[in-house]
Amino acid sequence: MKIDGTPYRSVWVDPEDGWSVRIFDQTRLPWRLEVLRLTTVDEAAHAIRSMQVRGAPLIGAVAAYGVCLALRADASTEAMERDCAMLGETRPTAINLRWAIARMLARLRDTAPADRVAAAYAEAGRIADEDAAQCEAIGRHGVELIAAKAGQGRRVNVLTHCNAGWLATVDWGTALAPIYMAHERGIDLHVWVDETRPRNQGAALTAWELRSHGVPHTVVADNAGGHLMQHGEVDLVIVGTDRVTRQGDVANKIGTYLKALAARDNDVPFWVACPSSTIDWTVADGLAEIPIEERSGAEVTDVTGRMADGTIATVRVTPSEAANPAFDVTPARLVTGLITERGCCPATTDGLLSLFPERT
Amino acid sequence: MKIDGTPYRSVWVDPEDGWSVRIFDQTRLPWRLEVLRLTTVDEAAHAIRSMQVRGAPLIGAVAAYGVCLALRADASTEAMERDCAMLGETRPTAINLRWAIARMLARLRDTAPADRVAAAYAEAGRIADEDAAQCEAIGRHGVELIAAKAGQGRRVNVLTHCNAGWLATVDWGTALAPIYMAHERGIDLHVWVDETRPRNQGAALTAWELRSHGVPHTVVADNAGGHLMQHGEVDLVIVGTDRVTRQGDVANKIGTYLKALAARDNDVPFWVACPSSTIDWTVADGLAEIPIEERSGAEVTDVTGRMADGTIATVRVTPSEAANPAFDVTPARLVTGLITERGCCPATTDGLLSLFPERT
Repeated sequence: MKIDGTPYRSVWVDPEDGWSVRIFDQTRLPWRLEVLRLTTVDEAAHAIRSMQVRGAPLIGAVAAYGVCLALRADASTEAMERDCAMLGETRPTAINLRWAIARMLARLRDTAPADRVAAAYAEAGRIADEDAAQCEAIGRHGVELIAAKAGQGRRVNVLTHCNAGWLATVDWGTALAPIYMAHERGIDLHVWVDETRPRNQGAALTAWELRSHGVPHTVVADNAGGHLMQHGEVDLVIVGTDRVTRQGDVANKIGTYLKALAARDNDVPFWVACPSSTIDWTVADGLAEIPIEERSGAEVTDVTGRMADGTIATVRVTPSEAANPAFDVTPARLVTGLITERGCCPATTDGLLSLFPERT
Repeated sequence: MKIDGTPYRSVWVDPEDGWSVRIFDQTRLPWRLEVLRLTTVDEAAHAIRSMQVRGAPLIGAVAAYGVCLALRADASTEAMERDCAMLGETRPTAINLRWAIARMLARLRDTAPADRVAAAYAEAGRIADEDAAQCEAIGRHGVELIAAKAGQGRRVNVLTHCNAGWLATVDWGTALAPIYMAHERGIDLHVWVDETRPRNQGAALTAWELRSHGVPHTVVADNAGGHLMQHGEVDLVIVGTDRVTRQGDVANKIGTYLKALAARDNDVPFWVACPSSTIDWTVADGLAEIPIEERSGAEVTDVTGRMADGTIATVRVTPSEAANPAFDVTPARLVTGLITERGCCPATTDGLLSLFPERT
């Protein structure tokens, strides 16, 4: 999508050297737009681990390019298996990471070592292009949900949590793809952006994306969504996801479950934008089976932002210790439906299988 | 309650001079414990207006002592009425402020000017003592709810939102009174402290209170409560309130409603500590009838804390604008019950009238 009129993707191969991998350092946003150059698998792993890149689909794409960088250093089968295993351990909750690595290995295991680098770049490029195309398709299906709420000369208010925009994918985003399409169609819409504590991905990334692209929006504390729904200020909720189970349970950023409860209590549709790479067909009960990443309490106690003089600073807001579960699971019963690249469906096994019959 | 072993109240008359009024500057917490000395009615008004003292019961007590300071300067009826009117305008919403001033005037109007100062200090002292006693009674009733969850050698986990501790009252607090009593009884308990965005009263005040008194606790992002309840990590929720309607609807800090929804969805008891002064018998439907204060968006976008070098600084977390509804209303149907100074009751008109039959 666009930054002040210029189109970008969130990961790309450097056009100058043809092999190094470029990303935005998302930990610097919204105050600095810094492009990083990844040249080794360790740099790629660090980028994922330190959340310079985040968002389930983007993590998958960067991991795929990380395999390319690994093979440039050592294309032997032994090294490839070792490096892929290392990349697979960088984050625990998102399924796309392991999906992308498995796909790379499936493509590369039967390729001669000498041909692996070229094959890997081709496959990683396909993963990135397919992700962008999938997100665009999610946008095409999801925009109809927004369009259905428009008309009668009224503004459509969409609430979203965390960042499931183009910065979380290769392009378009998942939850934000329908929003970008609605904006391009000229639908009068406004986005409530949950700030998304503790890492503030809403305030820092979603708000920055929408602002850069020119979409009207307002940041709110995560606490505010229920009140807004009680007062008719939210027409629909669209969020992304890190993993959807075959029965439609949704793992997503911590706090998503609370918004789903409020949506249900106020008859507000609650949609989850979900490329098929995010569906974990091996898991049914999300609450019991999806591991939830416990991150550092410092993400809660320490807040980074910009001081009045322009300096970036970190302040501590409490003398106490904090706990920091990073994701929660929204049971399928609270989800109105899933928006996939093949269309929308109920958050049920039957719903998913109706779109993905090959999984039966 | 105690700060590192020494008992304090949140407002007291200086024992050295016997007339000046001492408070903590709560805008400096949690990083600086600064005792202020109020010597004039204007200083008392400033303390309330600038939120050096906050919390409805404490505001009432400080206003009462402000009347004492006013009378020391001029005990004439004309000055007294003028100063009381000025004090009554310092904050718009707190019922206790006007209630305390009306009580002082009722006591003092028929007192000879020469006797007013002594009478005022006596009445202000009674207001403070009665508030502490009401909170202590809430603690005595509420501790039984915690005790009922204890035993079998297991730790009781209580979640609370915002600050309804001794800093918001004269002593004990409302929601925290049962917690302090449970701690003194030796019940093994642990408190999940919602950080309470956007003003962080949980992270800054509740955590500081519990830490100073020695009660085990952990700060969490407001987003985390639902996940904790899904995984059996919360035995009960206790929150305070700014206003309870006669049918049991509860206005409290923004985000309370989301925790009530999660508690209901996970069969976790959701209790509201509510001194009778907080019940608004004139209002039934909280959602329709309680006005919700819209505060500055800067409270969302700008975060204050301590930098590594000890400096207190404010950082901005988003380039975008924010909306900031400060309270929400939790419908009575989601409230397990109310803890008042006369005991616990269902959050219904019948429940409230069973404890307060004089309101029938």
